[in-house]
Amino acid sequence: MATLTKNEIKITTCETSKINSIDFSNLAFGQVFSDHMLTCDFKDGKWQSPEIVPYGPLTLEPSAKIFHYGQSIFEGMKAYKDANDNVFLFRPMDNIKRLNISAKRLAIPELPEAYFMEGLKALLDLDKDWIPTAEGSSLYIRPFIFASGEGFHASPANAYKFIIATAPSGAYFSGKVKVLIEEKYSRSANGGVGFAKAGGNYAGQFYPTQLAKDKGYQQVIWTDDTSHEYIEEAGAMNVFVRINDTLLTSPVSDRILDGITRKSILELAEAEGIKTEVRKVKVSELVEAAKNGSLKEMFGAGTAAVISPISGFGFRGEDFEIPEQDNSFGLQLKERIVAIQTNKTEDPYGWRMKV
Amino acid sequence: MATLTKNEIKITTCETSKINSIDFSNLAFGQVFSDHMLTCDFKDGKWQSPEIVPYGPLTLEPSAKIFHYGQSIFEGMKAYKDANDNVFLFRPMDNIKRLNISAKRLAIPELPEAYFMEGLKALLDLDKDWIPTAEGSSLYIRPFIFASGEGFHASPANAYKFIIATAPSGAYFSGKVKVLIEEKYSRSANGGVGFAKAGGNYAGQFYPTQLAKDKGYQQVIWTDDTSHEYIEEAGAMNVFVRINDTLLTSPVSDRILDGITRKSILELAEAEGIKTEVRKVKVSELVEAAKNGSLKEMFGAGTAAVISPISGFGFRGEDFEIPEQDNSFGLQLKERIVAIQTNKTEDPYGWRMKV
Ligand SMILES: Cc1ncc(COP(=O)(O)O)c(C=O)c1O
Ligand SMILES: Cc1ncc(COP(=O)(O)O)c(C=O)c1O
Repeated sequence: MATLTKNEIKITTCETSKINSIDFSNLAFGQVFSDHMLTCDFKDGKWQSPEIVPYGPLTLEPSAKIFHYGQSIFEGMKAYKDANDNVFLFRPMDNIKRLNISAKRLAIPELPEAYFMEGLKALLDLDKDWIPTAEGSSLYIRPFIFASGEGFHASPANAYKFIIATAPSGAYFSGKVKVLIEEKYSRSANGGVGFAKAGGNYAGQFYPTQLAKDKGYQQVIWTDDTSHEYIEEAGAMNVFVRINDTLLTSPVSDRILDGITRKSILELAEAEGIKTEVRKVKVSELVEAAKNGSLKEMFGAGTAAVISPISGFGFRGEDFEIPEQDNSFGLQLKERIVAIQTNKTEDPYGWRMKV
Repeated sequence: MATLTKNEIKITTCETSKINSIDFSNLAFGQVFSDHMLTCDFKDGKWQSPEIVPYGPLTLEPSAKIFHYGQSIFEGMKAYKDANDNVFLFRPMDNIKRLNISAKRLAIPELPEAYFMEGLKALLDLDKDWIPTAEGSSLYIRPFIFASGEGFHASPANAYKFIIATAPSGAYFSGKVKVLIEEKYSRSANGGVGFAKAGGNYAGQFYPTQLAKDKGYQQVIWTDDTSHEYIEEAGAMNVFVRINDTLLTSPVSDRILDGITRKSILELAEAEGIKTEVRKVKVSELVEAAKNGSLKEMFGAGTAAVISPISGFGFRGEDFEIPEQDNSFGLQLKERIVAIQTNKTEDPYGWRMKV
């Protein structure tokens, strides 16, 4: 695959920075965008050289396939700044690898890893002042690829756009969430695209999530689409359950995204002496555990929220509360992972990358 | 819901028509576009008035949700012109109704029917010279809605664009196709969005279809994602099977699109004295019928190709040919439906709409 160094990337800077117009003490998630973005076009059978340009509108033909056939994939990552203004990423090579796994499944040409990594480094160099430092905040990074090629024929496009945009962001969720175990709607099929970060997976979640919200829940726990007997993900996060002192999470599959937070948590938990089990978790087991008091915790895990504690779940019209724990695994593991991400502690795993 | 008449639609015409640059005797499918398009924005909580503007590029922010979360739906229809330059649509009310069924599932605000129908009529009035008349050709009509609202939060957008673009088109497929019965990849989940014309459904089909093409097939026959025992659709078409003199097709479900061609064929077949059965069709039944000679025909049915005959199928490494029939139901029904669509015969069903 093509190589490239950071210095080879053509940069066009914006005339005036928007940074002074942003209230960094009051950031929502992914609502304001940094001054620049990386863009890279696939055309004539290959990915062209990436460039950095001012963040701004895209122009597309109405027949661009993104509008018709949902050919799009994305990643989600974060950049952190420590007290000395050093900038860090967390396991970024896993994001580019997963982007290319998604690309293959969505019939999108794979991107040279160097275009992604060197492009991202150059972008962060330029926009490093946009990385917020307040606790819980970070620069959210959104790499994405979509079909820009034209035509109404339902077949892969011949042109694509890869973009990295960044957004200084506060916390994704505030506080604990109540979830609904979903038995009618599903997120993904066996042999489908659930393991890929494909745009279409998310649009399909909105309506069932809205129905859950109307009932007073904030998120949906997805179950397998065949039997609805097993819990699979929590909204757009992997899901963990603590029964007594064992932390359980479902194995990844073609329906479940191989989350970077999830696998980091599994490793950290082991190191912290927390027993983990990767196995399918039945809804009935969860209900049983909630009833007999052995269900101690439940949380979602993903880049945006890191760990998102769940205060209770609804199932078939009944609500089950999960009582507060003094020694919360979720809190403990979140502290560990955030400390590594933000360079507040040693990183024996080599996960943190200084850029 | 909002009302509107054709004459209330604001029209901005293009300065010079492109029509003379188009070779109408040699049209591909959905590759060239007529002079104008209808556009309509959803913002501030409602669909604004539709307008007709010159067909041309759209401008969107990089954070528009269409690029990230696949929130998009579409329809496919055709306009035909008869010898007296009268213009006809085929069951267009079913398209607007289905568009709104898709909208609901994808958490997209439903569109007032009048905006669709009156907008389309006004557009066809203006661009009627773009409707080709050669046999097998038509003006392909592509209504679509996508999320233009901004933000990286995985939730429904607050702004959408509805567009109708049209493309003078030749036949979608040429000749018979060989199909592969797919047992690994799936198109849709139980409780998923397969019944909706959601963009993401199509992107997910591209890679498995490419694998089938690499093996010498042109299309995939999708099976249910749970057992892979039942045939469900043929690529982006409904699928029909003729065993002896009975025409079979699967019932629609939340995994299978409720095709307008499919239901028209079922009605026409009855009227032609062809026995039909709407029931699940097992792959094993198909293989058995192919072996004992009772499998007489197989075809896909959809707006783009109308009826697309299948010459044989592959299953688990074995190829099964379907011999040519003298009295082909597929051909007979295609003739009937096209005759109605193009005003060459009476339309006892009220399916044809003169615009
Ligand atoms: C469906 C889904 N599951 C899980 C995750 C968590 O993955 P990661 O920890 O890599 O962010 C994500 C992305 O955030 C996701 O979209
Ligand atoms: C998945 C799928 N199935 C079936 C059909 C056929 O539907 P219709 O006959 O309404 O065009 C389509 C659309 O053409 C489709 O996209």
